[in-house]
Amino acid sequence: MSATRVRFEFQAAASGSGRRGTLTLRGRSTPTPAFMPVATQGTLKGIHARHLPRLGFHALLANTYHLALRPGEETVRALGGLHRLMDYPGIVLTDSGGFQVFSLATRRALDDDGVTFRSHLDGAEVRLTPERAMAIQHALDSDIAMVLDECPPAEAARGELERACDRSLRWARRSLQAHRALGAERACFAIVQGGRDLALRAAMAGELARDDFDGYALGGIAVGEDAATIRDQAERFAPLLPAAKPRYLMGVGSPREVVAAVRAGIDLFDCVLPTRNARNGFLFSRAGTVKIRHAEHARSTAPVEEGCPCTACTRATRGYLRHLFLADEMLGPILATEHNLVFFARLMEDVRRDLEQPGAIDWSWLERDAA
Amino acid sequence: MSATRVRFEFQAAASGSGRRGTLTLRGRSTPTPAFMPVATQGTLKGIHARHLPRLGFHALLANTYHLALRPGEETVRALGGLHRLMDYPGIVLTDSGGFQVFSLATRRALDDDGVTFRSHLDGAEVRLTPERAMAIQHALDSDIAMVLDECPPAEAARGELERACDRSLRWARRSLQAHRALGAERACFAIVQGGRDLALRAAMAGELARDDFDGYALGGIAVGEDAATIRDQAERFAPLLPAAKPRYLMGVGSPREVVAAVRAGIDLFDCVLPTRNARNGFLFSRAGTVKIRHAEHARSTAPVEEGCPCTACTRATRGYLRHLFLADEMLGPILATEHNLVFFARLMEDVRRDLEQPGAIDWSWLERDAA
Repeated sequence: MSATRVRFEFQAAASGSGRRGTLTLRGRSTPTPAFMPVATQGTLKGIHARHLPRLGFHALLANTYHLALRPGEETVRALGGLHRLMDYPGIVLTDSGGFQVFSLATRRALDDDGVTFRSHLDGAEVRLTPERAMAIQHALDSDIAMVLDECPPAEAARGELERACDRSLRWARRSLQAHRALGAERACFAIVQGGRDLALRAAMAGELARDDFDGYALGGIAVGEDAATIRDQAERFAPLLPAAKPRYLMGVGSPREVVAAVRAGIDLFDCVLPTRNARNGFLFSRAGTVKIRHAEHARSTAPVEEGCPCTACTRATRGYLRHLFLADEMLGPILATEHNLVFFARLMEDVRRDLEQPGAIDWSWLERDAA
Repeated sequence: MSATRVRFEFQAAASGSGRRGTLTLRGRSTPTPAFMPVATQGTLKGIHARHLPRLGFHALLANTYHLALRPGEETVRALGGLHRLMDYPGIVLTDSGGFQVFSLATRRALDDDGVTFRSHLDGAEVRLTPERAMAIQHALDSDIAMVLDECPPAEAARGELERACDRSLRWARRSLQAHRALGAERACFAIVQGGRDLALRAAMAGELARDDFDGYALGGIAVGEDAATIRDQAERFAPLLPAAKPRYLMGVGSPREVVAAVRAGIDLFDCVLPTRNARNGFLFSRAGTVKIRHAEHARSTAPVEEGCPCTACTRATRGYLRHLFLADEMLGPILATEHNLVFFARLMEDVRRDLEQPGAIDWSWLERDAA
């Protein structure tokens, strides 16, 4: 029995490995499969988080590394925790900070107890241990905390991967212990590493399954690989995760990757793709990505995507959006971000309906999706 | 009789020169005195214009110079004009472009027929004449077009001011003629120049009053002067404008300036102050400007201003806003902009109520207003 009050109920799809479920904790609930937008610094860029449930997002991800450095977890705690800070009523998942330490921080020094690094903001020396990662996430008041793990590069040699898995396993258990000592109502998810090595992944997943984590994630998959490789890994590794718990594919992904991973049995996703692409002027559409800066849209009164209910598509034209981007007006990224989020919300609605009613959704547009 | 279908009705205040009125044209209406936020490039920075009526703004200003250079008035026309472009149902006033030509453009060459300049965006040579300024504003589909005028610097010598007034008077008449040739349903406002010289201002106002413009503006007042000088000029020059028509004080201003000018009989204002200050982290409050980046707000759960109904004050804390500004997150300027606009909307509500019910408003906070 899990010590936390996390409820995850799902129905296996009529065919395939997909699962249609509901994840509930601390009085908050999201249908699954769910895509979590990324509120890196405690905000989605350009959108107030209170709008997310209306757009269709009942869970989001915030970054422990960024928030611990600025404004600092004790400031977030003093301001009432992430839910109150952002005015977000949905589920908040925080990563452990590990991934950013390994990708952003400078001068890392890794030891068995933890990792010391210098902040990318001001060079300040910071120490992160499994216990500290959980304490920070507790101070941030997230609903789901991730264990601290070592994130070796995707191209690491087998020996390095093995050592990273061993260390990450020990850190995961220390994280869980620290998490339980901090109180039981939050969830703690484990992370399975192991690169592209099925045996390593299987061994680590097997070890982690012996502990009663509230959910299990696949880490180290969306770290620069191409889309086909990501899909391939999601399909191979998803079945390694315990079937009764939520399965989370970290940092993924594009519509095609999400759809493929759901079919392999993944329940949760997070990715900056919709919001980052929006700010760069790349707008999702079932008819193919709309590059809104392109001259062809200059006098177009068409919406970005026919039938999309977002503000950009119902209240603005492609021509106006293009003007806003070329004139470097904030409203461009704001409207584009809402559009891409609504696109992903509708994608996930389709994904869930497809699990309830196989064949209900026409996915032929996915073949055209270049992302 | 005016050839346009502009209706301006007002009641003189029980005491003083203030007027409480309503300006109606093309089926659109705003209570006066009114403050027009500035949508320089066809958008308020960070706020979709459809929200403005709800916030309390039934008129806004857009800049002819900027829009003519990018995206170009024919593109705006192709996209349905400014109202459809921005999805704004209120009154749109466009300036003539003259002010920006004299303040932003490079290599100006002025002659009696018009002005040739190079765009600050790409150096392209552009020609602006009174007729062209009206044609552009017509293409933009604004409700109120301003005549093209020459804008000499505030410190210009009397001879230069005289010559500029003479030229501006001729240009105003050519503008009105061009405006009428383009169709009668829009309004055309004249601009009185003359620097700080009462006799020059009076002479030019007298001349312009002989033509039946739909409104009269004071130009060249808010161009770098200090607040006391602006208030002094507004009070001295407002009575020069025809009493039966809307009176517009261009580019003004701060709460103290607006309140003083309303008492002198001004009906319309525009200024970037609320929106620009917001982006710089200066938030208006009756208790004094809140400099939101300051460390004192780091862990403050207080709203920017008690009793303010805006999103920033009801859904966020000073601590969160400070974090958003320090982290360079778009949501900071977005929330700050809404707050400052709501502050000005409530200011204008108070201004109008004060005219209806003298003594109803406690203005003592204005003395503390540093802006």
